[in-house]
Amino acid sequence: MKVNDVILVHNEAKAREFTRRIEGKSPLFICTVGTTETAKIPGLSAAGKYPELTDYTPPADVELLLLGRCKCILGVPVTPEGIPTPALITMSALKLANIPTIVACGGLRIKPSIPFLDLGGDHGRDIRTGAAVDNVEEILERARIAGENLAEAVDYLVIGESIPGGTTTALSVLLAMGVDAKRKVSSSMPNNPHDLKIQTAEAALKASNIDFGALANNPIEAVTHVGDPMIPAFAGLVVGAGSKTPLLMAGGTQMSAVLAVVSALRREALDNVAIGTTKWIVADKTSDLKGIIDQIADIPILAADLDFSQSRFDGLRIYETGMVKEGVGAGGAAIATIMKSGGSITQKTILDEVERNYEKLVGAKYMQTHVV
Amino acid sequence: MKVNDVILVHNEAKAREFTRRIEGKSPLFICTVGTTETAKIPGLSAAGKYPELTDYTPPADVELLLLGRCKCILGVPVTPEGIPTPALITMSALKLANIPTIVACGGLRIKPSIPFLDLGGDHGRDIRTGAAVDNVEEILERARIAGENLAEAVDYLVIGESIPGGTTTALSVLLAMGVDAKRKVSSSMPNNPHDLKIQTAEAALKASNIDFGALANNPIEAVTHVGDPMIPAFAGLVVGAGSKTPLLMAGGTQMSAVLAVVSALRREALDNVAIGTTKWIVADKTSDLKGIIDQIADIPILAADLDFSQSRFDGLRIYETGMVKEGVGAGGAAIATIMKSGGSITQKTILDEVERNYEKLVGAKYMQTHVV
Repeated sequence: MKVNDVILVHNEAKAREFTRRIEGKSPLFICTVGTTETAKIPGLSAAGKYPELTDYTPPADVELLLLGRCKCILGVPVTPEGIPTPALITMSALKLANIPTIVACGGLRIKPSIPFLDLGGDHGRDIRTGAAVDNVEEILERARIAGENLAEAVDYLVIGESIPGGTTTALSVLLAMGVDAKRKVSSSMPNNPHDLKIQTAEAALKASNIDFGALANNPIEAVTHVGDPMIPAFAGLVVGAGSKTPLLMAGGTQMSAVLAVVSALRREALDNVAIGTTKWIVADKTSDLKGIIDQIADIPILAADLDFSQSRFDGLRIYETGMVKEGVGAGGAAIATIMKSGGSITQKTILDEVERNYEKLVGAKYMQTHVV
Repeated sequence: MKVNDVILVHNEAKAREFTRRIEGKSPLFICTVGTTETAKIPGLSAAGKYPELTDYTPPADVELLLLGRCKCILGVPVTPEGIPTPALITMSALKLANIPTIVACGGLRIKPSIPFLDLGGDHGRDIRTGAAVDNVEEILERARIAGENLAEAVDYLVIGESIPGGTTTALSVLLAMGVDAKRKVSSSMPNNPHDLKIQTAEAALKASNIDFGALANNPIEAVTHVGDPMIPAFAGLVVGAGSKTPLLMAGGTQMSAVLAVVSALRREALDNVAIGTTKWIVADKTSDLKGIIDQIADIPILAADLDFSQSRFDGLRIYETGMVKEGVGAGGAAIATIMKSGGSITQKTILDEVERNYEKLVGAKYMQTHVV
């Protein structure tokens, strides 16, 4: 079932109701960002040309959203194969429908040269230390206040994220909270490195002496020991905003860790929430978004029916093979743009704009990323 | 001429038109903050119990706005005589009309424990060094981007400020830019220390080898040499937002330095701008807001007709003697609240709420402020 180019993937009645509430409305897009040393474990994340470059991916992504170009790196963030960041899709979609954007910083090693909400957090440690995130309560509380205020000011919110290594930290938090997410989280690579993720998550739980489900009612401890700084920033925004306004959580399987945290802190904040993602996440055979979400709450899932198969650029056509799939709220931003336009903006309009920006920022061939 | 409890002070036709555009509308309140060593010159600022405490006043003010209480100090900021911060008025007004708030940080020594927009700036130096503010261009540019995005998201903006010593840095910037503001800037003290302000500003200009008006077309240099970090944050927001939406600049004579900067950078950004202040600024015989503004641009001035003469608290009645007068956007917040309510909220409703909060936070007698 589709509404314009938005697929109602899961909990169809609630998903349709959500599209009714946001149709023609003007949202604010919030991009939550964080970095974690966990992303530097070789083979875990493709959100950077080399593991060491993952520190630059979130700040570069949000610079792209707000400035139309990156400042902390040349070009745009790419995978090891040179495929450009999904922030290209997000930026193109937001621009088409003139959707304003604010950045919320959970904790970064490299700071972006744009205005960002400081939430008192810091760059995350490798989760195998068992001491992954400092100041979780403070980040949650500040984000809650920001969410409450921003929700009051706008029609509705779309919240996305950028954090390399985020599906592994999400997996760890989910296991600590008793959600069976093994072999269910997605990957930016076509060959999802499930074994490495599980091995990393289990090492993290072991380092913290946490059994499966032991922290089901203690999300702050779960994030502190085995999470990442993006999760409390995102969760706090949902806790503050969720009761006041429709809220589209823009992302893939990482959204489940945020949902688990919110559900344990303030379940009623989920009443107005939907997940907005891409067709590529929904079609992915190596992950199971619905299978995780259904263990947590009755949340509708929507997906932007993006189709890059006819693109004139290799680096975009390759999205159809399961490369990248989602990130930086690309799916949710596309949904918000389509719905704001009442359907006059289609997946084709979005692809045209993505190609224009691809040409300008990446060029005809894949761009190398260099740290400035 | 009045509209509800809002006095149309200056440029009456434009002021009336402005009230028409904001009546019944829901604004976002942005509080810009900064600190400067200049505030520690003895006798210059009353925005803190002792000069050294002025570093704590802006973070405490914005904590009060967002949390309903201060975290970085006990009690609330007070003058040396113990009169509480005008943030009490701002907070009470915003709460009455449920007006959301965001904080934009130009540069602080002490960071507040709330979400705030980091604009890449730092605590300001004593202007007599001739090197008052670092990164002025970066602060301006980041604030411009934030202003552009926030203006797109909301009905209109009200922007206030908190920076001790701000009228002296404003005077210096005005003189550098060729605006005759000597003996025209206001003070939080009943006896406006004009001689000390002029002496400080002249020492600052001399240290930078700047003659009167030499930087009329170079606001970035003016702020860099003799300004404060709040000014570029505020000016950048106006540059980004001013063309898109009505914008109420909430403050007293400091607003003129912001106006001078915006006027030199992007004059058309002032087309939708009005100044919103308090009756106490307008009635002040020791300063001349209109006399400064008229040298810069044709801007309407509105004033909240607040009246604390019948208050049951000494610390509020004393506002009627010219103590404190304005700050933290108190006048503009009161105007926004009255106009959002269509006049059903009056100056009396606001005083009642201020008294409730005064009782809770200050107590029956003046509160001492202690650093935590």
